[in-house]
Amino acid sequence: MASSSSLTLSQAILARAISHHGSNSSSDRPRRRVHSTRPVRASAVETLDKTTETSLVEKSVNTIRFLAIDAVEKANSGHPGLPMGCAPMGHILYDEVMRYNPKNPYWFNRDRFVLSAGHGCMLQYALLHLAGYDSVLEEDLKSFRQWGSRTPGHPENFETPGIEVTTGPLGQGIANAVGLALAEKHLAARYNKPDSEIVDHYTYCILGDGCQMEGIANEACSLAGHWGLGKLIAFYDDNHISIDGDTDIAFTESVDKRFEGLGWHIIWVKNGNTGYDEIRAAIKEAKAVTDKPTLIKVTTTIGYGSPNKSNSYSVHGSALGAKEVDATRKNLGWPFEPFHVPEDVKQHWSRHTPEGAALEAEWSAKFAEYEKKYSEEAAELKSIISGELPAGWEKALPTYTPESPADATRNLSQQNLNALAKVLPGLLGGSADLASSNMTLLKMFGDFQKDTPEERNVRFGVREHGMGAICNGIALHSPGLIPYCATFFVFTDYMRGAMRISALCEAGVIYVMTHDSIGLGEDGPTHQPIEHLASFRAMPNTLMLRPADGNETAGAYKVAVLNRKRPSILALSRQKLPQLPGTSIEGVEKGGYTISDNSSGNKPDVILIGTGSELEIAAKAAEELRKEGKAVRVVSFVSWELFEEQSDSYKESVLPASVTARVSIEAGSTFGWHKIVGSGGKAIGIDHFGASAPAPKIYQEFGITAEAVVAAAKSLL
Amino acid sequence: MASSSSLTLSQAILARAISHHGSNSSSDRPRRRVHSTRPVRASAVETLDKTTETSLVEKSVNTIRFLAIDAVEKANSGHPGLPMGCAPMGHILYDEVMRYNPKNPYWFNRDRFVLSAGHGCMLQYALLHLAGYDSVLEEDLKSFRQWGSRTPGHPENFETPGIEVTTGPLGQGIANAVGLALAEKHLAARYNKPDSEIVDHYTYCILGDGCQMEGIANEACSLAGHWGLGKLIAFYDDNHISIDGDTDIAFTESVDKRFEGLGWHIIWVKNGNTGYDEIRAAIKEAKAVTDKPTLIKVTTTIGYGSPNKSNSYSVHGSALGAKEVDATRKNLGWPFEPFHVPEDVKQHWSRHTPEGAALEAEWSAKFAEYEKKYSEEAAELKSIISGELPAGWEKALPTYTPESPADATRNLSQQNLNALAKVLPGLLGGSADLASSNMTLLKMFGDFQKDTPEERNVRFGVREHGMGAICNGIALHSPGLIPYCATFFVFTDYMRGAMRISALCEAGVIYVMTHDSIGLGEDGPTHQPIEHLASFRAMPNTLMLRPADGNETAGAYKVAVLNRKRPSILALSRQKLPQLPGTSIEGVEKGGYTISDNSSGNKPDVILIGTGSELEIAAKAAEELRKEGKAVRVVSFVSWELFEEQSDSYKESVLPASVTARVSIEAGSTFGWHKIVGSGGKAIGIDHFGASAPAPKIYQEFGITAEAVVAAAKSLL
Repeated sequence: MASSSSLTLSQAILARAISHHGSNSSSDRPRRRVHSTRPVRASAVETLDKTTETSLVEKSVNTIRFLAIDAVEKANSGHPGLPMGCAPMGHILYDEVMRYNPKNPYWFNRDRFVLSAGHGCMLQYALLHLAGYDSVLEEDLKSFRQWGSRTPGHPENFETPGIEVTTGPLGQGIANAVGLALAEKHLAARYNKPDSEIVDHYTYCILGDGCQMEGIANEACSLAGHWGLGKLIAFYDDNHISIDGDTDIAFTESVDKRFEGLGWHIIWVKNGNTGYDEIRAAIKEAKAVTDKPTLIKVTTTIGYGSPNKSNSYSVHGSALGAKEVDATRKNLGWPFEPFHVPEDVKQHWSRHTPEGAALEAEWSAKFAEYEKKYSEEAAELKSIISGELPAGWEKALPTYTPESPADATRNLSQQNLNALAKVLPGLLGGSADLASSNMTLLKMFGDFQKDTPEERNVRFGVREHGMGAICNGIALHSPGLIPYCATFFVFTDYMRGAMRISALCEAGVIYVMTHDSIGLGEDGPTHQPIEHLASFRAMPNTLMLRPADGNETAGAYKVAVLNRKRPSILALSRQKLPQLPGTSIEGVEKGGYTISDNSSGNKPDVILIGTGSELEIAAKAAEELRKEGKAVRVVSFVSWELFEEQSDSYKESVLPASVTARVSIEAGSTFGWHKIVGSGGKAIGIDHFGASAPAPKIYQEFGITAEAVVAAAKSLL
Repeated sequence: MASSSSLTLSQAILARAISHHGSNSSSDRPRRRVHSTRPVRASAVETLDKTTETSLVEKSVNTIRFLAIDAVEKANSGHPGLPMGCAPMGHILYDEVMRYNPKNPYWFNRDRFVLSAGHGCMLQYALLHLAGYDSVLEEDLKSFRQWGSRTPGHPENFETPGIEVTTGPLGQGIANAVGLALAEKHLAARYNKPDSEIVDHYTYCILGDGCQMEGIANEACSLAGHWGLGKLIAFYDDNHISIDGDTDIAFTESVDKRFEGLGWHIIWVKNGNTGYDEIRAAIKEAKAVTDKPTLIKVTTTIGYGSPNKSNSYSVHGSALGAKEVDATRKNLGWPFEPFHVPEDVKQHWSRHTPEGAALEAEWSAKFAEYEKKYSEEAAELKSIISGELPAGWEKALPTYTPESPADATRNLSQQNLNALAKVLPGLLGGSADLASSNMTLLKMFGDFQKDTPEERNVRFGVREHGMGAICNGIALHSPGLIPYCATFFVFTDYMRGAMRISALCEAGVIYVMTHDSIGLGEDGPTHQPIEHLASFRAMPNTLMLRPADGNETAGAYKVAVLNRKRPSILALSRQKLPQLPGTSIEGVEKGGYTISDNSSGNKPDVILIGTGSELEIAAKAAEELRKEGKAVRVVSFVSWELFEEQSDSYKESVLPASVTARVSIEAGSTFGWHKIVGSGGKAIGIDHFGASAPAPKIYQEFGITAEAVVAAAKSLL
């Protein structure tokens, strides 16, 4: 296909929309060179029809292969095998199928691409480079995997514009892709009009054998099938090799049958190495199936082109070595210097810059029309696209007085969610089959389902890991989408992989984690978090919030909504808690603050520090001590990270260095608390597993009581 | 079937081995009362043939139902729905099919049963009670979910003899069951002789919709299919209800097709509520399929028998309430007081005590014969059964001198694993597709595979969560089985759910976690652990070990092998580390110890504390400071938990309270270190995500250097 930069805008769009199959394309598949069995080591490029077009495609594909080979070679680190095997599908996607604007990687209506097998990132860097993204210039390819480069060892959206999500830990990417496709389906259902499909893009993904083995991938793909995400098209790079060798040693299931069971449409491209038309036909077929996601199993040869290393694990994760690079150059007929992009290939790809600009301009014009007709919807959609929160949204946060009824923070959380859903058009989410326990239902909305995708309650089923990663995908789809998800706090253990990626990739997911301590009672130690607060306080770029009552829960939501570049985890109680005097939204925003004090001159005799359900206990202990004439300050330490970010003078005003008599109380591990209470203080907590019994009994038996706080305080005075 | 206690021993065994199908049993299934569609709410017990036998079965089944109903009602907490629906399959398993000795729950050759849907634990407690286990007496049923009871809210092997594993967090149990079945297949292959099948039992499991949705279940079941675990028989309680309501809202995949893809044999029992013969026939068929695990999908009605709550989520997780209990009693024709076991039911089950004793005695006699003929194998198997380690095993641990070559601790780990495999017959394990990176291959053994189950290298594929839970199952199969498993340390995030269960259920799994810091270099922040050391130090009953060199790696293995009741996590380096003077196995056993010191009178000017790859940096900094005349102690803090367990005087000898000038260095989060360095000390670490670059560059840029330690020390002097 020659450059189409001279086509009219609408022609260009049309040409791309129907996909570039060439004049002899056909939906019959496979057309030629079909291997009836998995291809074995390819020792030479297979003969192709020598039309200009195909030879240029092949040249482009080899350019991609060698950019990957050369970058890995220069870094002496990286994964050349996948890019060499997946270059054909990569080429077709970025050159013939996908709609994007390289000069604005954040154009809202772009097709999304996710490389779930993130170790093969040189594939995507090479494609971004050819497509004209400014984020991946030749110098970036040459500094692959080096300090400060824009081409890190795995794809990272926060480093490289054009990368949608952060992958590498296997299975995350395909789950992110499900989230991206969910977001598209949801926004399309909410905002498209019969006369204007203002939201309309595909989500593509490449995943490998490793991703397929991960449980998270099965979870997310089961949901994708359930939701009928017809615009999700995943390419399974079926190369039969993983790090330990042939997948026969650990992975002999029928992926096709499994995906059929999951409700996907399945297509098998038997020759992914050179079967360009097969790949094209598969994509066409996938697009025609609108009620199911499609898995295109593309059988490839890992390290295709390398005469001695292809089809073996040795080409997966290390540089080929100078000798084998030479042999591969000879084998694929590649006479060029490292990092060379042949002029005709460069010329061919250059059309994407004007085309992409035209695509965006066309869409912008369409949006202007839309805005005229549907001003309310347009304003909402704009705020979702831009991430600008509606003015005054925070006024919707509920407030409480000490006279407000005692309640569990999980219930108070639901009041906040329901209040916020009215003012935040991008708020949507749900629970991993615990909606009625996590209290996460938005009462004014129905369920996001296959046939009701405009609704905002998402039913994730018992799939915590998939849920977290899907929310990462939703969050990264559009800055104004604010996904929340929920389970019992202890089951963060199931989804920690996704939660860490939230933190790393700057996805402001809100994690609504209820049943946050032994306070859940009878379910026992399997369900009682102990070390979880500590484990998230240690996690970078993560806000761990443990509100004590209504005002603090509202404060936690204010913080969570405002922090769009880091996840917030709300630890919430199952049990009822009183509305405490002195708590406030503003206090929560500072992370730690004084809720009551009878000292003067910033010199209390003792400081009692609590979080969440134990702040009440600290307050009770303070009353006791004050009765005995002590000057006692009670500090709520709702978020360590926020407190750490305050000025030294503020910190000194809450925790004066001169006051070493400090007692903390929290129904969880004491790990980490010694930094707060200091060498002279005492940390009351639980450094062992929980127990099955009614909650008050466990609190008593474990010594999480006001008496214990009083005793500890007295021992320090 | 009447009591068979009068049968001869071998008759009894035979009778049980062929399973009790009654005189009219048949392998044709289903025979009668087949529902062509999923049964809807059952408003009354369906009519059964009124033979004595079946009526007694039904009475027993209703006993199980009401023990569950009554216990949940008394506790006003728990999950009656599953026991009411699964009572028929539970009855058939424990009364007709399984081989066990209630008076010795630890009899080696017993059939194993796992309730993966652990919330339904009253099912199992009722069965153990009827079967005659001393661990579940009537008083235990009456103290369900109470403080100190043996009937906690979810099944816990460490609380209740007769419970094999700890379940509740969904999906763990089926993965444990895969581990139990793997252990049986492995030991059978190693120790059975043509004339003596000394290892020969089944593993049964009940899992629900929740388990089926969890990724971990798919991971483990994919492996079970790959390994052809023919003696694993799983019952899928297909009741179409989960906490959020009908599974239609989130779970519409075809489980049958998925499991077919995973290589399982599938049977559907359409009437699990009263189709006793269907259930029996299914088990018979499952046993006949020896090369595949079997999934018996049993369609049941959750809360069967409750006229107003069955087939709804309301019966899943809370007491029925007095009114509905009454209605259920009427509906099922149950005139008895709460907790009543009718005399004929009691009498019927009473045979299991003599029968179980006979089964064990028969096996013991067989083992005595075996021992005579195969003394070497018998001795090995005995040590696996008893958990007694072979005398002098620790002499196999390699030792190193400062002159030994520098090496990565992952390589030193492999030396230990290979040395130990020779002396520890129960050591087996592997990696999640990173064997060549984790360095976990046992060189003298082949792969545990379907047709080579006697081998000891287990290939888990990229399935971290399943791997951990499978290892829990292996560890809990026999005290002398010592499973290890491996991945990159950062991917503990994927398997933390299983690792926490290791800690809780007292499974001494060895977690070989390599690439333990930014020292892995170019793979970047997705692969670089930061908060992971802290997160495991906070986890109860878990040994987090980070050895610095060869002697410390050997020490870590010594500790790991000796600690059979808690998991050990070894954090190991990718990069080479020198063999340091002063390190020792004995030192590691104390958790923290001095490796060098030029002070006297236990009064160093400053104490430098390091772990793993940073101990070298601390040692270098000490040299610098000593050159300047300072008295410097270097402490290796390889395991916080072990140090915490030492005497106060030992702790004082290492970290004297009077010395507040302390500097710690670790390439990870500083979270928690302030307890060790105190308010007067400094903790050097990394409180943000990593970066993609060569490792030395990252160390330099992040300030994890000897210069930084020297500067910090000087600032304190």
